Amino acid sequence: MAVHHFVPEIYYNTIGSHEPVLRIRDGDSIVTTTVDAWGVDHKGDTVTKRGNPMTGPFYVEGAEPGDVLAIRLDHMYPNRNWGFTSKVIAPNVLDADFAAQLPKNETIYWKVDIEKGIAQLADPTPRLAHLKLPLAPFMGCFGVAPSRGQAISTATSGEYGGNMDYRGFVTGVTAYFPVFVEGALLHVGDGHALQGDGEIVGTGIEISLDIRFTVNLIKGKTIRWPRGESGSHLFTVGNARPLDQAVQHATTEMLFWLKEDHSLDIAEASTLLGQCVEYDLGNIFDPAYTMVCKLNKALLP
Amino acid sequence: MAVHHFVPEIYYNTIGSHEPVLRIRDGDSIVTTTVDAWGVDHKGDTVTKRGNPMTGPFYVEGAEPGDVLAIRLDHMYPNRNWGFTSKVIAPNVLDADFAAQLPKNETIYWKVDIEKGIAQLADPTPRLAHLKLPLAPFMGCFGVAPSRGQAISTATSGEYGGNMDYRGFVTGVTAYFPVFVEGALLHVGDGHALQGDGEIVGTGIEISLDIRFTVNLIKGKTIRWPRGESGSHLFTVGNARPLDQAVQHATTEMLFWLKEDHSLDIAEASTLLGQCVEYDLGNIFDPAYTMVCKLNKALLP
Amino acid sequence: MAVHHFVPEIYYNTIGSHEPVLRIRDGDSIVTTTVDAWGVDHKGDTVTKRGNPMTGPFYVEGAEPGDVLAIRLDHMYPNRNWGFTSKVIAPNVLDADFAAQLPKNETIYWKVDIEKGIAQLADPTPRLAHLKLPLAPFMGCFGVAPSRGQAISTATSGEYGGNMDYRGFVTGVTAYFPVFVEGALLHVGDGHALQGDGEIVGTGIEISLDIRFTVNLIKGKTIRWPRGESGSHLFTVGNARPLDQAVQHATTEMLFWLKEDHSLDIAEASTLLGQCVEYDLGNIFDPAYTMVCKLNKALLP
Amino acid sequence: MAVHHFVPEIYYNTIGSHEPVLRIRDGDSIVTTTVDAWGVDHKGDTVTKRGNPMTGPFYVEGAEPGDVLAIRLDHMYPNRNWGFTSKVIAPNVLDADFAAQLPKNETIYWKVDIEKGIAQLADPTPRLAHLKLPLAPFMGCFGVAPSRGQAISTATSGEYGGNMDYRGFVTGVTAYFPVFVEGALLHVGDGHALQGDGEIVGTGIEISLDIRFTVNLIKGKTIRWPRGESGSHLFTVGNARPLDQAVQHATTEMLFWLKEDHSLDIAEASTLLGQCVEYDLGNIFDPAYTMVCKLNKALLP
Repeated sequence: MAVHHFVPEIYYNTIGSHEPVLRIRDGDSIVTTTVDAWGVDHKGDTVTKRGNPMTGPFYVEGAEPGDVLAIRLDHMYPNRNWGFTSKVIAPNVLDADFAAQLPKNETIYWKVDIEKGIAQLADPTPRLAHLKLPLAPFMGCFGVAPSRGQAISTATSGEYGGNMDYRGFVTGVTAYFPVFVEGALLHVGDGHALQGDGEIVGTGIEISLDIRFTVNLIKGKTIRWPRGESGSHLFTVGNARPLDQAVQHATTEMLFWLKEDHSLDIAEASTLLGQCVEYDLGNIFDPAYTMVCKLNKALLP
Repeated sequence: MAVHHFVPEIYYNTIGSHEPVLRIRDGDSIVTTTVDAWGVDHKGDTVTKRGNPMTGPFYVEGAEPGDVLAIRLDHMYPNRNWGFTSKVIAPNVLDADFAAQLPKNETIYWKVDIEKGIAQLADPTPRLAHLKLPLAPFMGCFGVAPSRGQAISTATSGEYGGNMDYRGFVTGVTAYFPVFVEGALLHVGDGHALQGDGEIVGTGIEISLDIRFTVNLIKGKTIRWPRGESGSHLFTVGNARPLDQAVQHATTEMLFWLKEDHSLDIAEASTLLGQCVEYDLGNIFDPAYTMVCKLNKALLP
Repeated sequence: MAVHHFVPEIYYNTIGSHEPVLRIRDGDSIVTTTVDAWGVDHKGDTVTKRGNPMTGPFYVEGAEPGDVLAIRLDHMYPNRNWGFTSKVIAPNVLDADFAAQLPKNETIYWKVDIEKGIAQLADPTPRLAHLKLPLAPFMGCFGVAPSRGQAISTATSGEYGGNMDYRGFVTGVTAYFPVFVEGALLHVGDGHALQGDGEIVGTGIEISLDIRFTVNLIKGKTIRWPRGESGSHLFTVGNARPLDQAVQHATTEMLFWLKEDHSLDIAEASTLLGQCVEYDLGNIFDPAYTMVCKLNKALLP
Repeated sequence: MAVHHFVPEIYYNTIGSHEPVLRIRDGDSIVTTTVDAWGVDHKGDTVTKRGNPMTGPFYVEGAEPGDVLAIRLDHMYPNRNWGFTSKVIAPNVLDADFAAQLPKNETIYWKVDIEKGIAQLADPTPRLAHLKLPLAPFMGCFGVAPSRGQAISTATSGEYGGNMDYRGFVTGVTAYFPVFVEGALLHVGDGHALQGDGEIVGTGIEISLDIRFTVNLIKGKTIRWPRGESGSHLFTVGNARPLDQAVQHATTEMLFWLKEDHSLDIAEASTLLGQCVEYDLGNIFDPAYTMVCKLNKALLP
């Protein structure tokens, strides 16, 4: 149960079977940092190429295909006092015949008060001067090396996790990923100080983070898509286009979870989910969209 | 500001330019009832054909194309002690290669305690015997006559409202529809005692309702898709397939709303929505799916 | 086997259970005309409201729900010397981030030489002056009254046919529709002098037509989606969004056809279609898109 | 203009920045072989892992990001006398509520007469005994290394090409890919003896091939998606889900082509494509679907 203080020196813009930067054991924790989506760190220095650079990968001793890797997000918090967003809703989120009316996109800067836990526009128009948004930091992109030796851009996501941009991956949540390669090869990054559902401008408030997480290995357990657990909910994550397919992946994965771990057959799980399920829209911007299927744990048998 | 106590004698399975059952004025309220999706009333009598039979249409004096009809949902509550759901998640909500594993669909009955405000399975399996779900009654299907003299099945939805099956249309909410024909011709029905997001088994707890609502006419105002307002949120409703397109309609409509009524230009509205928007999945079962775009009113300028 | 010469005096902009304009018998033929999408006839007179006005409906004696109506397209040909198209590809057919580059849409006129069977731009730019396109006239919108007493806009399509804008419905083809109401209530219109796949500018060369067709009633036969037969192919038509769903409808309908009329079980039909099927993109512009599943008849057992 | 006779010894199941197996120059030709989707060669020996193993990658001297690689398919022909297909249409190609009726999937074998150019089922049911299908061999999966150092499974496709399973990539066609990395790194494989549109059973007639192709480098030319040219047509290829998005990519790419190489502005290209475009359904089975936008070259200015 070691705690590793890791200072990243190299970053990857793909999630894949790269040379591990650190080898850890089941139960270990890592304290480290992530740079923002542009490769800029807490000092404002550009330390690597833009495009969601990842800290890692971390090799977990004993992890093999057919296992599950659990990552408890112990702590995630901005480590600098500014972030940025895009200015305009992405055209694929709007009616096709409206897109012609969109203004030019630009970068907008935010002041991030990490003491008070508040974000404000650095240079607001009068009509947005009132905005004081509470920080709700989360990991935009994380996951394990995919199957077949693939290395996949951190712009997108899949069964292995990746750029899900789901604002539910906050401190206190445990995320679960299927293991596809020896050592699992965990990558983490793309911190957001906060974000709306769907990441509809294509960014949260992009920022560098101090993070701490704890890794547990669950041997011989099959999951097909990322899962998560918060204090109140179980959730499953589908990454695909269109959103319909993301819903299909997430809902099917929830059925498997309720069946395998909670003894509900398909009809029972259907009855429960039918009247009680909740869905979150993770992102509708990235190459793969993300939908999350949630169930309040108080409703479990 | 009359209050009309209306007892329905005829029901329609389409929303369209049917002969009005009652003419009312701007500001009037109607107290009436709706039958369940099968055409069964509070006494358990089948009084009309199944398939979301509508109470109405109600003709609003002075309503014309180019106006908006506002319906404040003053009261909606089950008027009998049982409801029903379907047993199995719809195959279109699950991975295509999983559908072969689904059991046969059936009807499941629920006891609805309208005093205590609780629904329970009438004949639960042991693993679901603990379920006591608080009632959260809403209107599954309502709207105004569509354009062109169309009469459209109450199975589906569109710009005119219809079978949106969105569980956010609860008591206290005001819904807004564009007016397409003289008199607007409001139809209401398909009450659900409660429901999960997405109506993924194809039903909420289907039930007959006592309802009261108040109609207000907003002259000369253009909206393109249904809108709503609750105590806390503004919301817009997109009805289409795939879900992506429903998101596009709802988000574009919210941009119009923020621009026209709240003086935010597209860039300001984008900045606000980008970090603060919420989405609800209304339904992913009906011919048109429903996504809802929400903004907390505390965030408005 | 009468031949009815019918002169339309009224047109509908929905397909629905309207008062029939003519009653015919199984085997009868109708010789009549259709106006163009704007309601303009062969003389250039605007005789009805724009939006794909329909000639009909024609009541077929003896037709009942559960039957199939076969319409052999005996003759369809422009009856005037001009047509029109739109100028710009619809934004929903292009990448979302490209739509902002689109020029303003306008109407473009074509000269239609009905003797030589050629269409040319009325006022071509130099780079399009060479275009001489052979006429390939077809019916853009036709079908029977839908179920439930619905009346549905001629902008869209469904199981009942409608605005499929499929350029395969040419002279010599027989189209089949499921019958939903007594008399079937056939509507025809929206002639195009020719068109590319997909109707991607939102129009073919819109024109008024002289038409002749013959109606046959097939009692007690169930089909779920429109079908067609040409000299060389069987085809089935799916109308839905996204295109994926249109493919699903069309392909499932083809499986039923091969099973019911050609004795192929699902595995045999799969093997045959898997290596031999063809698909056409009917339209990707209207509210419901159209995909067509085709099989060369020479490949049937 | 060398001709390289290359005998593969290693195969990749991803398309990516792997160590090149051969370095060639602009204008060179390669004569080589591909194994089938299961990694089985012309002798029936399993020589590598299943899953569309690729021959290559071939490094093209001088190729850099921002160039285009042209591959003329000089010759592709089966080099053994058997192939295989799957037995059942993929459930995602059929209505969701039909999938439960599908039989169990299996492998079906075909006899391939490479002298006569005919494929027949090895063990046909009586109703399929008549099938004698002419060979139409094509490359199911080929492309260049994608951007960012990615290595992407040969199950899917993207801007870089990949598993498009488009039956139009036959002998005589030239394919064009954008170059993302130095040397371009061309991969080829997944030969099909023939196939229907859409690859709806998930396979063509999978077979090993003898191939010859010639590579030309086009410096400083930007394309965004794969293109192709046959004797009769220009075509562009979009790979995405849903099919709608694949159409958007392909059509937008065709607009760029007509503008940049054929001097047509957007309105002119729209007018031409609107009435003359053709679409092919490449595949509706793989993770990314493929739609192809085609224009007859006789219609160019």
